Order: sequence, then C-alpha cells, then structure tokens
Amino acid sequence: MLLEAIYHHPKRNWAFGYDDATLFLRLRVKKNDLTAVHALTGDKYDWDRTRQLIPMSKFATDGRFDYYQCTVKPTHRRLKYGFLLEDEEEQLWMNENDFTTQEPQNADGLFQYPFLNPIDILKPPAWVKDAVFYQIFPERFANGDPSISPEGAEAWGDTPQTDNFFGGDLQGIIDHLDHLNELGINALYMTPVFKATTNHKYDTEDYMEVDPHFGDKETLKRMVNACHDRGIRVLFDAVFNHSGRTFKPFVDVLEKGKASSYKDWFHVHSFPLEVLDDTPTYDTFGLEPMMPKLNTEHPEVKKYLLDVAKYWIEEIGIDGWRLDVADEVDHAFWREFRTTVKQANPDAYILGEMWNESSEWLQGDQFDATMNYPFTYAVNDFFVKKESDAQSFAFAIGRQLARYPQQASEVAFNLLDSHDTPRLLTLCGDDKRLMRLAALFQFTYMGAPCIYYGDEIGLDGDADPGCRKCMEWDPDKQDRELFDFYRELIALRKEHPALRAAGSLTFLEAEPEGTSLAYERRSEEEVLLVLLNRSGKSHVFELDIPQQDWELAFGESQWSAGAKGFHAELPPYGYAVMKTTPAKRVE
Amino acid sequence: MLLEAIYHHPKRNWAFGYDDATLFLRLRVKKNDLTAVHALTGDKYDWDRTRQLIPMSKFATDGRFDYYQCTVKPTHRRLKYGFLLEDEEEQLWMNENDFTTQEPQNADGLFQYPFLNPIDILKPPAWVKDAVFYQIFPERFANGDPSISPEGAEAWGDTPQTDNFFGGDLQGIIDHLDHLNELGINALYMTPVFKATTNHKYDTEDYMEVDPHFGDKETLKRMVNACHDRGIRVLFDAVFNHSGRTFKPFVDVLEKGKASSYKDWFHVHSFPLEVLDDTPTYDTFGLEPMMPKLNTEHPEVKKYLLDVAKYWIEEIGIDGWRLDVADEVDHAFWREFRTTVKQANPDAYILGEMWNESSEWLQGDQFDATMNYPFTYAVNDFFVKKESDAQSFAFAIGRQLARYPQQASEVAFNLLDSHDTPRLLTLCGDDKRLMRLAALFQFTYMGAPCIYYGDEIGLDGDADPGCRKCMEWDPDKQDRELFDFYRELIALRKEHPALRAAGSLTFLEAEPEGTSLAYERRSEEEVLLVLLNRSGKSHVFELDIPQQDWELAFGESQWSAGAKGFHAELPPYGYAVMKTTPAKRVE
Repeated sequence: MLLEAIYHHPKRNWAFGYDDATLFLRLRVKKNDLTAVHALTGDKYDWDRTRQLIPMSKFATDGRFDYYQCTVKPTHRRLKYGFLLEDEEEQLWMNENDFTTQEPQNADGLFQYPFLNPIDILKPPAWVKDAVFYQIFPERFANGDPSISPEGAEAWGDTPQTDNFFGGDLQGIIDHLDHLNELGINALYMTPVFKATTNHKYDTEDYMEVDPHFGDKETLKRMVNACHDRGIRVLFDAVFNHSGRTFKPFVDVLEKGKASSYKDWFHVHSFPLEVLDDTPTYDTFGLEPMMPKLNTEHPEVKKYLLDVAKYWIEEIGIDGWRLDVADEVDHAFWREFRTTVKQANPDAYILGEMWNESSEWLQGDQFDATMNYPFTYAVNDFFVKKESDAQSFAFAIGRQLARYPQQASEVAFNLLDSHDTPRLLTLCGDDKRLMRLAALFQFTYMGAPCIYYGDEIGLDGDADPGCRKCMEWDPDKQDRELFDFYRELIALRKEHPALRAAGSLTFLEAEPEGTSLAYERRSEEEVLLVLLNRSGKSHVFELDIPQQDWELAFGESQWSAGAKGFHAELPPYGYAVMKTTPAKRVE
Repeated sequence: MLLEAIYHHPKRNWAFGYDDATLFLRLRVKKNDLTAVHALTGDKYDWDRTRQLIPMSKFATDGRFDYYQCTVKPTHRRLKYGFLLEDEEEQLWMNENDFTTQEPQNADGLFQYPFLNPIDILKPPAWVKDAVFYQIFPERFANGDPSISPEGAEAWGDTPQTDNFFGGDLQGIIDHLDHLNELGINALYMTPVFKATTNHKYDTEDYMEVDPHFGDKETLKRMVNACHDRGIRVLFDAVFNHSGRTFKPFVDVLEKGKASSYKDWFHVHSFPLEVLDDTPTYDTFGLEPMMPKLNTEHPEVKKYLLDVAKYWIEEIGIDGWRLDVADEVDHAFWREFRTTVKQANPDAYILGEMWNESSEWLQGDQFDATMNYPFTYAVNDFFVKKESDAQSFAFAIGRQLARYPQQASEVAFNLLDSHDTPRLLTLCGDDKRLMRLAALFQFTYMGAPCIYYGDEIGLDGDADPGCRKCMEWDPDKQDRELFDFYRELIALRKEHPALRAAGSLTFLEAEPEGTSLAYERRSEEEVLLVLLNRSGKSHVFELDIPQQDWELAFGESQWSAGAKGFHAELPPYGYAVMKTTPAKRVE
C-alpha cells in the first residue's frame, strides 16, 4: 500500500456537509492500489452507540489516484472518523496523524468534522441543476432599436473589430426570445449591460445605469420579465474587480490626485496616475490603464458595490450574478456579497469567473459555482484539438470531479467557449462533427451547460474580436441542422435526470491512445449509456455490462446486447445515447 | 521521484500571504526523495519581465514527507507559479494538473495565487509572538475577599470535587500579581468569570455579569487595569457554543416550550425539553443537558453574543478572547466575531479551543491561533509518557509546522496542560526532571507558551477535579527551585528572539529509538542550540556543525567545539542551551 499517496483533509472537498443531515467523506489513494476502503465513524461523546463502518466506493479516478467516497448521517451532527484501508496483503487504520494495524477503540486521535452547522454548507439554488444556459453578448445579438445605436455603428454582420459597434440592444433580445424558447434554453447569462464606453462594457462608467445604447431600465425590466414569462432565468455580469476609465470616482482621482476624496477607492502606488515603463502607477486589471482595480476592502466601495448587487435583484428581479475576474477580488468582499445577494434573493446563482482550480471559493461562504474552464480545457484537448487520448480525458474529468464538493459540481457552469475564447466551431477547425461530439459530452455531463450565442446556428470566429461577431438571423444563412442537433440535445437532457445532477458518472471505455468513449450516467430510476467515436473510422464497442433492455435515445448506432455484454458499432464521428432502467439489484 | 507523494494546493497552508507584499509557497514531497526544489513564478500579464526561479528550502520533515518552502514578493501582487523538482536522475516541472519535462514558456497551466489582498491575510497581533501566558482558574487561584465566597465553601487547600467551591476570586488575583511579575508572565488567560452556577463557570447564566462569587465589574476592571499596569495582557473565555441551564432564554424555553419567543435560540428537536434514552431532545455540549447548544445562526443570538464580545473589550479593555468548544460553532459566526472583535480592538488575540488539526480556522477570516493540543500530544508522547522516540517527536513537530500558515505557528498557544487535562507534573509521574525537559522544549519553541497556574511551584493533580486544586501560597510548601527554573526559562526566552517567532527550527539530533534531542533555533542575529537528554544515563552529543564560539546560556553541559564539530555531554535528564552569533556566510 503506497501510504505516501493517501490524502485526506478534515474539511473542504474531503469532508463536507451536503445537506443539513448528510456529510460526504472522501479519500485519495494510489491508483489501483486498494481492494476496499471503509470509513469508521461515530460521535465522540457517544462512540459505542454510534460507531459505524461504512463502505466507500470509487467515484473518480485519474492517472495517478483513485478517489473514494461515502455519505454519513451523524447521529448528533458531530463526527469523528478514520478509514480502514485494505489491499491483498494488509489492513490499515488511518487516523489524523498516522496509520495503525490496531482498530481504534474510541474516537481518540481520529479525524474530526466537529459539527454540521447548516449555515456553513454550500447550498446552491436547486434550479441550476436543471439549467441550460445561453450566453449573450448584447452588442452583437440583435439590434431591436436602431434609434439608440451608437453613432457610426457598422452594418449588422460586418467584421467585428476590437472597438467597433453594431447596435445590438435589449429590445433585440426581447425580439428573439422565440429563438431561445425553440432551442430549449431556460437561463441566460448576459455580459455587462451597465453604462460603459466599450462594446463589451467591462469598463463600467455607472453601475446603476443601463448603457444608453442598449436601452433603459424600463426596457431591461421588460426584457427580464419577458424571459421570466418564458421560463428563462437571467444572470447579470458584475464587474467588481475594476471600474472603467470614466467611472466618476476614478475621474475624480485622475483630476484631483491625492486631494480626491475617492483616492482610497483604488490602489494607487504613487501620484499622479500615469503609466511608467508600461506599468500603471495604480493597480489595474492586467496592465490595462483603462481598468483601475477597485479597492473592495474600502467600506465605501464595498457599500457601493453591495448596493449595486442588491439593487438589480430588487429592481429588475435578476436570478443571479456572474462575477468578472472574481479571483482577484478579496474573499472577505465575496463573503459579504453572498450574504447580501442571498438575502435579496435566496435562489440567486452566484457564479465566479475562474480559469484555475477554484475550490477555495466553493466552500459555502462565497460562490455557488465557477465557470468550469478546467472542464473546457479537458474537452478541448480531447474532442477539439485531439491532443489527448480518451484515457487522459477521462482522467482530467475524474480529477476535476474530485476537486470540488459534490454540490458545486452539480451546478458547475460548463462552457465550451465564450466572449473570451475562440468559438467552438473555429476551435474545431470548422469540423462540425467534432463540435457535435464536444457538445454531446457537455450536455450529458453533470453541471449546467452553456451555449455561446450563435454556436447553435454555426457562427464561427477566432479569439476577440472574431468571437464577437453579429448573430446571424437570416434563416438561410443559419445552420438549421446544427440548431436541431442542439435543440434535440437539450430535450434529451431535460428528459433524463440521470444526465444532470442526479446521475453518477462512470467511464466504461476510455483507453490509452483511444479515440472513443463510453460512459454511463446512472440514477436510481434510469441508466443512460453514452457512446462517442472521435475518429475517422468506424468503431466497435464491446462493453462488459449486465444484460438489459436498451433503447436508443439519441444519435445512431448498430447495437446488440446480450448475456455476453453490450456490442455497438459507431460510424466515424458517430455518437449514440442508449437508455434503460437499472436492473434490480439482487443482494 | 515518487509523484504520488507530491502535494500542493493553491491556497491555505500551501500558498498564503504573510504580509501585504509577501507570499509563502510550500510543497510536500516524499521524504529524502529530491535533491532540489525551485518555484517558478511570475505575473501572468507580465511574464517575461517578472519570471523568477526561486530556490525552496526544506523547512520541516516528518516520517513520510519533506516540506519545502520559499517566499515570493509578486511584482503586481498577482502570482502564477509552478515548481521545478530535481533528483539524481530527472528534472520535472509541476503545473496545476501534471508534471512535464518541458519548462513552461509562459503562465498557462500553472498554479495561481490570483491576488494578494491585504484583508485576506492572517495577521495575528504582534504582541503574541513574545507572550508568555499563565492560565488561571479563578475559583482556585486565590481567595481575596472571603465575604463573597459561596456558602459552604471548603477550606482553602482541601480536596477539589467536581462540584465544591473554595472561594477563589478576582481580588485574589489582584493580590498575587507580584507572583506573576516575578515569574515573568506577560499574558493571562482566565477561564470564565461570568455569572454561572458551577465552580468552572462554563455554564453561563448571564454573559453580561461578573459572577458574584468572583466579584463585580468594578473589581474586574481593577484587576484588568492592574494587569495592564504590570505589562500583563488579559484574555477572557467566551463560552459561545452553549449556555448554562439557568441562562434566561433557556429557562424560558424550558418553561414555555414551543410558545417561548426564545425557542429558536437553541436547537430543539422536539418539545418538551427532556432526556430520552440518555439523549437530550435538544442539541447540547456533549450529551450534557445542563449545557444547551446555542443557535449561533439565529440573528438575535448572534447579535447578543457579538455584543458580549464587544462589551468586555470596550468596557473592561481585555486583550482577546479564548473561544470554548470553538470547533462546534459555525464558521460564519466566527467570521463576524472576528470582524466585531478586531473593530473593537485591532490588537485582540482570538484563540480557539481545538483538539484536532485546525487549519480551517487559521486562514485569516476566523482565529489568530488555536490551543495547540497536537503540540501537547507530541510533547506528552516523548517527554512525559516516553511512548515515542526522539525521531517520532521531531516528525510530529515537523508535521504540525507544515499544517498551518507560518504566522499561525508564530502565535500558537502552546500548552502542556490545562483545566481539561491532568497536570503536567502528574502526567510526568511526579518526575520533575521530565517536567523540566518538557517545559524547556515548550519555551524554546515557536508560539506562545502557557503555564497552568501552580505548575511553576509544583502543584500536581489528575484529571478534573484533581487538576483544579487550590493554588498553594505557603512559600514553604511551594517548590521554589521549580519556580526559579520557570523564571529563568522565561527570562531566557525573553532575551532571545531566536527562541520565539523570529527563529527557524532545525533538529540536529533526533534518532530512531533516541532519547536525546538537539535542535537549533536560528535568526539573523543569533543561533541557539538546545540539547536535551530524556534518559537516565548521561548522553554524548557529537554534532557536525560549523565551528563557532559557543556560550552556555541555560542549564549545564560539558562541551567543546572545534573544526571537527560540536561535542557535549549531558548528565541523565540534563539539558543545556548554547548560544552564538551566526557565522558569516561566505558565498
């Protein structure tokens, strides 16, 4: 048994409350090293009456480790626990400091989860488990009111540049909600709509005003109401890490320097504000002088931004906030933000922009979820760039699942592209076969998938500004076949809870150098089997799974299932989703 | 290179801010597996200009792992980083997901510490680094005002029982401050002084009143002022996990049941409040019906307790709070507690009672430190119970140092006994030679040592009630030699910053089956060498350290130092502290 590989921490993603009665315990061990793992649990003040030995099962695996987990319902909400590890040769008990061959006789020396306090548990809004998001970049979605378009706006559909405008607006979104309903979308993430100078609006000038080129508060309210009427929730973008160059407090500091009463609203290293040796004399987003970093520790700034967060929930009824550059803002601010937002709307979804491992923000006190770019990278590497094999892909997914508490994975924001990346189709080298496979994985995986506007009708585009093209509304220029694919995929996901948070994930085929994937999503009520072939040749799956009455739910496949296992053949770039009800377990 | 052993997490005790400009990075690797470790660091938006390769050094080790660390001052307060690992055979780069043989050419894929926000950094009060604590259990320290002693109080010095009284009080403490000054104490931790029914006062009846058997607010104020006049800080005990049976809100619930307006102040599972099958129908401390758990999530309870926390700081000027059963109270409460307390007194020390690994509470948002029972256990196992050898002891200390951010270790509350354990002398089987060795380690180690009242004059006693004996004030019955030992030990610690937070710790001798220890505490200004012999035979140390001009600072030893190393002989149970100034490094 490789003891150096074994890892547990008595909190975080290794021991966490899932609901007011249930704890998850997890343990990492060397891959394929153990034959069985149990958790030994009990109450420290009531050990003999509460002692339990609970089997743990492998819920994820990566190239180096297996991850085991179990759930516990502590008798008095307190838990002391250790682990029993078994391989072919030995049995070891693991406590907080070491391994022993002797079974612990009481709670002394064991790990502890001191008390399951409800307020500390991450409880994301339930609706997100079933959400299908659509991201809109308002300046490029639809121009519904040319009278408010920026002066010099280009003709709709011309080439996007870093700094040109096309006149997309809120009325344009209202006008096209049928499109979203037809697709099956039930949640919208909108990049910023507040007054700003750029086309992307990430340089806020006034957090309390709608950008006049987008519309006004009345239009915004109409838009959000219309979405709600159609069963679509709406997420706004909170750009709280930095303001824009024209934000009044910043203008004041630019003008008055040290004498400005706003001088502590920013992080100024020296006056006057200038750029020396390519570096601003004040903290910024990146090294961008136009985007001064806000001092979110300052009580006035904090109050201002928290008022903003509350205002748009109360005034317009939004369903949550996506937080721009969330990782660079202090944790203390986000904790107050969470309290404020959840007070205003307990069902609000708090989603942080994150490009790295994000577990620190997913412990219950800050975000409900983060933009799952680690998921994006894994899908890109396998489906899109073809740089990784099926096994590496499965390992990357397993590693990611092990990193976060279960409930964070259930509401992760799973995107394949955004206004900050090249478009999926372009990443795929315009190969829609690859694009479909990537999307199929996205929509059959746990977490909330998001479609970047236009992907569904075949919009392409490289990194900014290419990925911010105008939406194509001419049906003849839309790829309606692709649209139907997405529509059916969304319908499939909606029909099958096992494809969403309710289902466990097990890879059945993911080989080294493999280009095909088979995985099972299983809930108590149903089993979905997903088959994908990323290669240019047809592929035969031979899966050693129990005989069941399979039915084709999506895609196409020649298949047969019998006592000897499941057999299926997929054409090049083919895919199929099979469904069945789980066999009754005979125990 | 054993990759399975390598661990890092991009936050917590593995990557943490130490001050507003400095980050610590740490990495765990298999013991004795690597020849060199470097951190590759830089700003993601300014990589080429900010890239650095920083050597990391081993700062702790345990039986299985080596722990490396370095400090970084990020150019723009943002940091992306990876590690370069080397052994005899290979060189590997470690990023957030994997190991590669290729050097990363930019920040992509590396770990991230997104931004060094000052408010998120754990900044314990500086005074604690130099504090020497003394714990007083007021009912048993001194009776300064017999007129307020409880009815039926026993004669001072009689046998302590679970529920008897002796009349110790605040005036008694005031009367004996000379004793503390003589000893060299500069901080006091007092178990609860608020109105309660028991002798220990952990069953609070009224958090806003001084227990009448201890005195009144005026006396308490005089006591705290007198301490401050003598350079002694004062810590009170906050029993916020539970109240007592006679706490008015609880009495109200007992009386009115469901109809009580206080019913949500507690965690009642079913009315009426009763004990069924040895289990109360409401949550309690342990299974003790007299101590109902407070619902610290309830806004009224929270407000009440936070007002209490603030009141005693503002009214009496205390220097901090020790938090009883801190681990069972919700994290959200402690975060608000920290904000409230630090607003009232930025220099207040927030100390949680913890018996297990406590890193979750030491990240900057909750406590400054915890009662370091893992340290206690390690010292007990080696010095007191003689159940572990020198090597295991050094490993336990190393493991503990690696668990917490550096600044938390610098102000850890290092105790060897308390009102909750048998007394040190009794644990030592009344062997004062062992007791001295344990204390010498305690006082030459990083963190704030605490003496439990009476230990310094030879008080003994088994677990509660034995450990809560009356203090012995008859000089003829005090062990004045032991007192002088503690006095000199404290003086030694005060004289040498390297023995406190400023000094690094390196074990020079700590052998398997060994009963002797040699370790170095080193600051930029001085080096202290501590030698301890826990055996009944004399012991010879042969240390391969550079030639220096050593001087005996404490204890006794025959020693010589030359080009061939350092040689010393200690008698049975002997100890010595040597000092020198560090050799100039020739580089």
